[in-house]
Amino acid sequence: MTFEQWMRSVLDRVETALDHYLPAQTTEPATLHEAMRYAVLGGGKRVRPLLVHAAGELTDARPECLDAAACALEMIHVYSLVHDDMPCMDDDALRRGKPTVHVQYDEPTALLVGDALQSQAFVTLTDAVVAPLQQAALVRELALASGSIGMAGGQAIDLASVGHTLTRAQLETMHRMKTGALLRASVRMGALAGTTPSADAMNSLDVYAAAVGLAFQVVDDILDVTTDSATLGKTAGKDAKDGKPTYVSIIGLDASRALAAQLRTDAHNALAPFGARAQRLAELADLVVDRVS
Amino acid sequence: MTFEQWMRSVLDRVETALDHYLPAQTTEPATLHEAMRYAVLGGGKRVRPLLVHAAGELTDARPECLDAAACALEMIHVYSLVHDDMPCMDDDALRRGKPTVHVQYDEPTALLVGDALQSQAFVTLTDAVVAPLQQAALVRELALASGSIGMAGGQAIDLASVGHTLTRAQLETMHRMKTGALLRASVRMGALAGTTPSADAMNSLDVYAAAVGLAFQVVDDILDVTTDSATLGKTAGKDAKDGKPTYVSIIGLDASRALAAQLRTDAHNALAPFGARAQRLAELADLVVDRVS
Repeated sequence: MTFEQWMRSVLDRVETALDHYLPAQTTEPATLHEAMRYAVLGGGKRVRPLLVHAAGELTDARPECLDAAACALEMIHVYSLVHDDMPCMDDDALRRGKPTVHVQYDEPTALLVGDALQSQAFVTLTDAVVAPLQQAALVRELALASGSIGMAGGQAIDLASVGHTLTRAQLETMHRMKTGALLRASVRMGALAGTTPSADAMNSLDVYAAAVGLAFQVVDDILDVTTDSATLGKTAGKDAKDGKPTYVSIIGLDASRALAAQLRTDAHNALAPFGARAQRLAELADLVVDRVS
Repeated sequence: MTFEQWMRSVLDRVETALDHYLPAQTTEPATLHEAMRYAVLGGGKRVRPLLVHAAGELTDARPECLDAAACALEMIHVYSLVHDDMPCMDDDALRRGKPTVHVQYDEPTALLVGDALQSQAFVTLTDAVVAPLQQAALVRELALASGSIGMAGGQAIDLASVGHTLTRAQLETMHRMKTGALLRASVRMGALAGTTPSADAMNSLDVYAAAVGLAFQVVDDILDVTTDSATLGKTAGKDAKDGKPTYVSIIGLDASRALAAQLRTDAHNALAPFGARAQRLAELADLVVDRVS
């Protein structure tokens, strides 16, 4: 199977699983459920679900278990996008090529869509057909990565940094929490859904995830200044306009490109202990660095 | 031990546990953690933690396990208050006798405090020293009660109902989701933290929780028109001003008082199978109906 075929098959099954794990549009309150589905379905790069399925190949995890973990992670990711786009945060009108939830519906609905998607992520994990011990471990990974020492905490640091000069180390800390924590959880949860991975294996995966997570952000910053809104599916040039520190603003475009290349190499090196089983993870590192949107 | 002594001891230990389960104020991002602690600590009636500990007496649950469940429920409850108080929702400035989080800090902080408290609730549950199977069951109860078919869904229906005439049945559906689901989860989680309760026992507890949950709302509606803001610790008379349907507006004050009394009797009757072990649950039903704030 080529990487493109593998990716297509994962994306297809994850879309089906998301449709299954989200409450039906006909279930009351219907507008809320419609808006949750509007936010989640039919868009996005699904990087986290792809990482889950790729990491699951290392521990022979069952695909249905990986689907549940992948859906939970994607729900958390989408809830953060919905809240980040709200007027009191980034105030953005375009996401994944569609009007943002508060534009398409209204602000209270956007707030509740985010809140309810977070709950639904944990409901979904408890639907995963794995041993209770694994289920509890998956819940803990996701909750820690989502909360105040993970994604939400990184978002708080991001907001506080607007208009301030950050050092490169501070910028890295922010991204390690804001986007890195959930990407890391994706890799870890994929591995944890199968046979128990060794501590050494988990450490290698953490190194891989740290490199991929940072590369993801560096490339995001590069694309923000080199690509138009239509290609991105979100508003381009927004970080510079908002006075947000980025890799490009701190180290420049060329150094950012060199950094992304180095991080790709770091990610590949971290996978050496796994041999051919880590092929999809290696290909995903390439995808993250080479993407154009 | 009198009811007052029991209540005092539970409130004390839950406050200590909340302090323990919330990230320290010195942990980065410090402002977010300070705001999370501001929202949660030192206020509130702690009805959900009291229900958890009272229900735990039925199944000999260990107090430390009940603390974790109680803290998780209180974090979810407080997150919902923080988000409900935001300008795009109820736009309220006073809560538990203090400025609301978006007034004391700012709107983005309030949004993130709520988001992070929800995550922290699930982190907390995975700290509960119970068997993994119980942990997974507790996570599922809490996630379902919090989400779109529970608390968040009830909030959506509440928002959609402003300015509309609701039937009593519609009002009841809304409250059963908005506040009832989490109160029911409190009772169920308390029981589930101990020796496995029978299906019959869980059914009786559901009947009890439904009566107490509805009584709680009916009394809230009565207090909203009969009590001042200083006593309530939140803005009185707000529902009528906002055109929100309440029990008082639909069936009148006298009928609302009669309904609260009937629901107390229903709650007591549901506890009959448990005998003296359900004493605290019975006393809590009295507390909910007799409270003056």
